[in-house]
Amino acid sequence: MTCSFKVLNESYGARLGKITTSRGVIDTPAFMPVGTAGTVKALLIDQVKSTGAQIILGNTYHLMLRPGIERISRVGGLHQFMNCDLPILTDSGGFQVMSLSKISKVTDEGVTFNSHIDGKRIFISPEISIQIQKSLNSDIVMIFDECPEYTKDKNRVESAVNLSIDWAIRSKKEFGINKDKMLFGIVQGGIFNDLRKDSLSRLLEIGFDGYALGGLAVGEQQNEMFEVLDNIKDNLPTNKPHYLMGVGTPADILGAVKRGIDMFDCVLPTRSGRTGLAYTWTGKKNLKNAKYANNDTPLDPIVNCQASQNYSFSYLNHLVNSNEILASILLSWHNIAFYQDLMQKIRMSILNNDFDNFYNKHFDILNS
Amino acid sequence: MTCSFKVLNESYGARLGKITTSRGVIDTPAFMPVGTAGTVKALLIDQVKSTGAQIILGNTYHLMLRPGIERISRVGGLHQFMNCDLPILTDSGGFQVMSLSKISKVTDEGVTFNSHIDGKRIFISPEISIQIQKSLNSDIVMIFDECPEYTKDKNRVESAVNLSIDWAIRSKKEFGINKDKMLFGIVQGGIFNDLRKDSLSRLLEIGFDGYALGGLAVGEQQNEMFEVLDNIKDNLPTNKPHYLMGVGTPADILGAVKRGIDMFDCVLPTRSGRTGLAYTWTGKKNLKNAKYANNDTPLDPIVNCQASQNYSFSYLNHLVNSNEILASILLSWHNIAFYQDLMQKIRMSILNNDFDNFYNKHFDILNS
Repeated sequence: MTCSFKVLNESYGARLGKITTSRGVIDTPAFMPVGTAGTVKALLIDQVKSTGAQIILGNTYHLMLRPGIERISRVGGLHQFMNCDLPILTDSGGFQVMSLSKISKVTDEGVTFNSHIDGKRIFISPEISIQIQKSLNSDIVMIFDECPEYTKDKNRVESAVNLSIDWAIRSKKEFGINKDKMLFGIVQGGIFNDLRKDSLSRLLEIGFDGYALGGLAVGEQQNEMFEVLDNIKDNLPTNKPHYLMGVGTPADILGAVKRGIDMFDCVLPTRSGRTGLAYTWTGKKNLKNAKYANNDTPLDPIVNCQASQNYSFSYLNHLVNSNEILASILLSWHNIAFYQDLMQKIRMSILNNDFDNFYNKHFDILNS
Repeated sequence: MTCSFKVLNESYGARLGKITTSRGVIDTPAFMPVGTAGTVKALLIDQVKSTGAQIILGNTYHLMLRPGIERISRVGGLHQFMNCDLPILTDSGGFQVMSLSKISKVTDEGVTFNSHIDGKRIFISPEISIQIQKSLNSDIVMIFDECPEYTKDKNRVESAVNLSIDWAIRSKKEFGINKDKMLFGIVQGGIFNDLRKDSLSRLLEIGFDGYALGGLAVGEQQNEMFEVLDNIKDNLPTNKPHYLMGVGTPADILGAVKRGIDMFDCVLPTRSGRTGLAYTWTGKKNLKNAKYANNDTPLDPIVNCQASQNYSFSYLNHLVNSNEILASILLSWHNIAFYQDLMQKIRMSILNNDFDNFYNKHFDILNS
């Protein structure tokens, strides 16, 4: 089945769309829960699906190190291995190689790095990354790029852009022709608008099924990130999905949707859930706080999720303070459900040509 | 609604029965998953119920220390607090006061102990324990007893028996007349058969809705425990449930059912699950073991549970070795489901007058 993307409506810069993959449809703007190592942490896939999530993300870097690709590919891929029938987007490993492995050496050929698990020396190239993603049988494949740390050193960023373009060409060649899957390019260039535009225009020449913005949410301020988006948004092709990688808080997402972004992924909802934090329509709540011991109302009656509606602040406060695993389960589940509720309401507001009002009503509260 | 117990059939010493409580029926022999601190660890109540469990256990000691009884009673009790509509049996705290608190001082009046959480000095008596259990609104209340550590010092055990009988009288008086609930006595006496019989006959004089055997599974060998059961079983009243507290492994349970026991509770299935151990019909499996990396078959296709049927040894081995919370979830869920499958098959074999064959077919494998 041929994959496709269609924009259905626009409202104040925000786009309502639909990605069709061979494993299912993804309504955009979409948030993809992160299943780093073959599990969306603390949740069953049925729970993830119950929130309305239509796609999850897997990490090439983590999976190649543990359990290794052979164990996954021999059962048919990541879907079978982790018992997941949702579409899966896989990251290429470029970002994690830089951020997680202590020593990495970049050459034109690829990157040699030390595993953060056992220190083992490993080589990865654009070709290897794409081969792995094919073995994982992911539905949306990302090119292998060089993702530099947050820096104001323009030369450093420029050389990463140049190398990434070369790797994008090699990634596309290795991917070949495969209408059942999508291959996304990744725009680099840090906080330098001219480099971003150069990176994008060269990727457009190569031609991809979607365009991601990489190298953001790596330490810059929210306003810096929004500035990058403001400067690039008119150059992004209207007929392809725009994916902002690794972003972000509910307010980050709302602000990026306003700037034409269609896809997001982030570990925040699950990671925050494991530390006792809940995102709600009235802002972020730290369930460790003693004041919640006196609150017998449910966490968030607006969000249509068991975890949000069936357990009180007092009970959740007890679970968090007792280090019970159920605290991580319920708060991760609720947070993913909250993020999906946010995306669903964003999509409704775009459909109703009312995104501006929705944005103005919620941005400040969500950003507090 | 008046609670009741009925024996429906017997087979080679094993009893098939039915406890009726105001919150639901419990088919016996029954295994009660332990929800120590207001959660069956790593599981949602819906998952616990999906295994066929008909009752869970809560701990007075843990709940009185954290979150405290007031937070639970003000919402109507433990069922409401933890969002559980199954019947709940609450332990009285006697066992935990001895085993978990570092310094405890026993007088005729009660026990003063230091909280294992914050060291706070706390007093508990039979009256206080029963009041707490009433506030928790538990369906089956246990008398407050003195449960000595495993010892061969007969005088020590005898004085605990005497004190426990006095406390049993006071517990019953505090419980009063309440046909909606059941109050169980606890037989003490360690490994001394004459003390056990003396304890039981004095409890029978007082009169309870069920009789528990306490002070076992505290360090004695399996054969010592079975000997105690062999010696007391003909003295237990046939028209009341017999509950062996804190037991045990699947083989312990099978052996105790053969000796007329109707009810069990134990942390083993959940605690083992959190350390990567799975109980199966072919014995115990340590999922950390490297050999499971090569096994793509499901954990236990016989047990009717998602966790047992939908995930491979290889995947579970990956989750355990990656310290993923999902490992604890899936293995706790499977283990509870395995225990319930065991109980259900035990009940079927008693119904079919075939318990002896069932016992002989499975005891050695489960005990290996």
